[in-house]
Amino acid sequence: MPQRLDAARPDFEQAFAALLAAKREVSEDVDRAVAAIVADVVARGDEALVELTRKFDRFEIAPETLRVSDGEIETAFRASDPEALEALRLAAGRIETYHARQIPPDHDGTDEAGVRLGWRWTPIQAAGLYVPGGTASYPSSVLMNAIPAKVAGVERVVMVVPTPDGVLNPLVLAAARIAGVDEVYRIGGAQAVAALAYGTRTIAPVAKIVGPGNAYVAAAKRRVFGQVGIDMIAGPSEVLILADGQANPEWVAADLLAQAEHDAAAQSILVTDSAELADAVEQAVERQLATLPRAEIAGASWRDFGAVILVPDLESALPLVDRVAPEHLEIEAEAADLLAARVRNAGSIFLGSWTPEAMGDYVAGPNHVLPTARSARFSSGLGVIDFMKRTSFLRCDRRSLATLGPAAIALGRAEGLEAHARSIAIRLGR
Amino acid sequence: MPQRLDAARPDFEQAFAALLAAKREVSEDVDRAVAAIVADVVARGDEALVELTRKFDRFEIAPETLRVSDGEIETAFRASDPEALEALRLAAGRIETYHARQIPPDHDGTDEAGVRLGWRWTPIQAAGLYVPGGTASYPSSVLMNAIPAKVAGVERVVMVVPTPDGVLNPLVLAAARIAGVDEVYRIGGAQAVAALAYGTRTIAPVAKIVGPGNAYVAAAKRRVFGQVGIDMIAGPSEVLILADGQANPEWVAADLLAQAEHDAAAQSILVTDSAELADAVEQAVERQLATLPRAEIAGASWRDFGAVILVPDLESALPLVDRVAPEHLEIEAEAADLLAARVRNAGSIFLGSWTPEAMGDYVAGPNHVLPTARSARFSSGLGVIDFMKRTSFLRCDRRSLATLGPAAIALGRAEGLEAHARSIAIRLGR
Repeated sequence: MPQRLDAARPDFEQAFAALLAAKREVSEDVDRAVAAIVADVVARGDEALVELTRKFDRFEIAPETLRVSDGEIETAFRASDPEALEALRLAAGRIETYHARQIPPDHDGTDEAGVRLGWRWTPIQAAGLYVPGGTASYPSSVLMNAIPAKVAGVERVVMVVPTPDGVLNPLVLAAARIAGVDEVYRIGGAQAVAALAYGTRTIAPVAKIVGPGNAYVAAAKRRVFGQVGIDMIAGPSEVLILADGQANPEWVAADLLAQAEHDAAAQSILVTDSAELADAVEQAVERQLATLPRAEIAGASWRDFGAVILVPDLESALPLVDRVAPEHLEIEAEAADLLAARVRNAGSIFLGSWTPEAMGDYVAGPNHVLPTARSARFSSGLGVIDFMKRTSFLRCDRRSLATLGPAAIALGRAEGLEAHARSIAIRLGR
Repeated sequence: MPQRLDAARPDFEQAFAALLAAKREVSEDVDRAVAAIVADVVARGDEALVELTRKFDRFEIAPETLRVSDGEIETAFRASDPEALEALRLAAGRIETYHARQIPPDHDGTDEAGVRLGWRWTPIQAAGLYVPGGTASYPSSVLMNAIPAKVAGVERVVMVVPTPDGVLNPLVLAAARIAGVDEVYRIGGAQAVAALAYGTRTIAPVAKIVGPGNAYVAAAKRRVFGQVGIDMIAGPSEVLILADGQANPEWVAADLLAQAEHDAAAQSILVTDSAELADAVEQAVERQLATLPRAEIAGASWRDFGAVILVPDLESALPLVDRVAPEHLEIEAEAADLLAARVRNAGSIFLGSWTPEAMGDYVAGPNHVLPTARSARFSSGLGVIDFMKRTSFLRCDRRSLATLGPAAIALGRAEGLEAHARSIAIRLGR
């Protein structure tokens, strides 16, 4: 059973703060190993990739076979389950439509002082997408990472995916083809991140690297940050379900378990004003767990990190939601829209009882790469602007420089930066 | 004299690559010291701040005097030079107008499948602004960091600024008042970053920390990243000036020196198709250096990191500009607009001969916090969205879940996530 907290009890604040502070991940100290791997790839390029792939993925490779050929992708495509392919195509279309609306507006105007100013968004020129191997190799994540890049206009989207013992999920290659990925390399780990950041003879470098990975991948991304851009470092997944007494306990239980099955470190929290619903959900979770293939993982997550929080009314739960800043927030309540409008911190909100979070994972259109570990307080899910950058521009003429220049000269001198002041004064003949 | 490169020579690619790769900063290894400071502030809060301020800033402080009072800010305001205050007010107004256009659009719509989807941008709730002490304590940077936060709607903008030996530039406090900063604390270094990230009895924590600082501040920001958001880690400033033979060599030289006077590690690069201009600019730089107060710094920067690059024509310089990805790009050429339209990577572009870069530093309106060290390939200058985050939302109804649910079920099963599939199937009665 997960812990139960009651907002009416005097010890609630302490218990809630402890829930927020709970560490769900053991941070492995892999920095030294990763530093060596990155340095090796920088020094020896393809040769290092071949050796490290032999060592970590138990797989023989050569510089000529690092890249997955078009023929292999075609073969994988044909080998994929037609129903799954059709679902991927549907998902890709909806994800593209949703993200196309995110292309940010430019600005270009001249103000009354005669100054032309604005900005222009441009795509980054090349992006790298890390896809984990083995059981966490998800075709849906290929779509969610690659499509926003393509919508942004990135010319070269490069995917890396390790093939432990040579095994690769064909549906991952099919998703890459559907999403328009330009190059696929069968490498993984810190060595793949290093190759994307610094380039090798076979792999041209990219400007930004996105996508989830294990502790080695995360440490490598932190290490190459600066050389290239990176996305957020993703933690274990989480859902907070805000439900009133009308919610269907079986549906709520199913949604809690969908989150919990990701990872024993995932977190599912139910917040409700109905003790009856809380009891019914807990019983339904136990029942549903019994027949779940990933019962061991989901059960551990629910037992160790799950929580049921009783509140006097759902409105009073809103400050708690903002403190949790959940990656996924489901609101299965009559007043879902009103409550959602007042939430400040959440990665994504799922409104009403007919919107299980899994719809957002796959086909609805919004991105499923979302801020975890309370970072929705200050960051957003993956989107088109993560693959673009904004360049501001400015044009003065003789008149506007004469109007505004003296103020800039005054500030330059006040800051002790005389050459700044002079660069303006010299044009004004002062 | 700075080095001169000629694109027509066979060794050019090698020389240009070396210029790009040149390290301009010695990276101090302060990680261990910073880890201890952060841990101390987490453990002992205000008490640690008092002791560390005594040690590093040689200044006696108490928890009650950590915060700069309204009275002190008022006094600083009255003590400030009226001309500088007027210039700050003018700058603040223009910066606010420019940034107000950056508030990103929300989206909320229902598609033909009956799915309601969209996103909503909200301000982060509290932001911390680090302002360096001593000679690099710039009032203009207070405006550039605080105003976008206020435009975004951040309720609590908290500034920290060290006061070595108790000394604080009154114009920095005046700028804080003009920009609408809500709280100011007289602390600096890694201890100030830790206080903002974790909070103390006196200082409530923030969700994001921005602003420049020394190696300790940068290392502290990297360390608290995750607990809070951070902006980019800024490197030494840089300008690339693209000029044709018509450019005024005295003006170009003044602009190169305005950049160089920031820091001996700053970089000023001239790219031109006119060897005559190149010669004239080099002579003008030497002449102007002779009377510059910061001649020692500017001279060292120009000598050690400056460069003059000759190209056959300005169009052929565009790929070089994109590889440099300069923080500041000035185009002093007849064809400035046409050339600018084809630039891919630059933090900010200054068009034409009447737009010295210093105008962008102070009063024009665009932000002067810009990506350095080639990071304009993948990142943008500071803006309003750096103080906001996007929450996506989704609402299905019975009909749309029936339409799209089967595809999501198929993908869940294809990924081995049965509980995902069941959370949808249970609602469809399957």
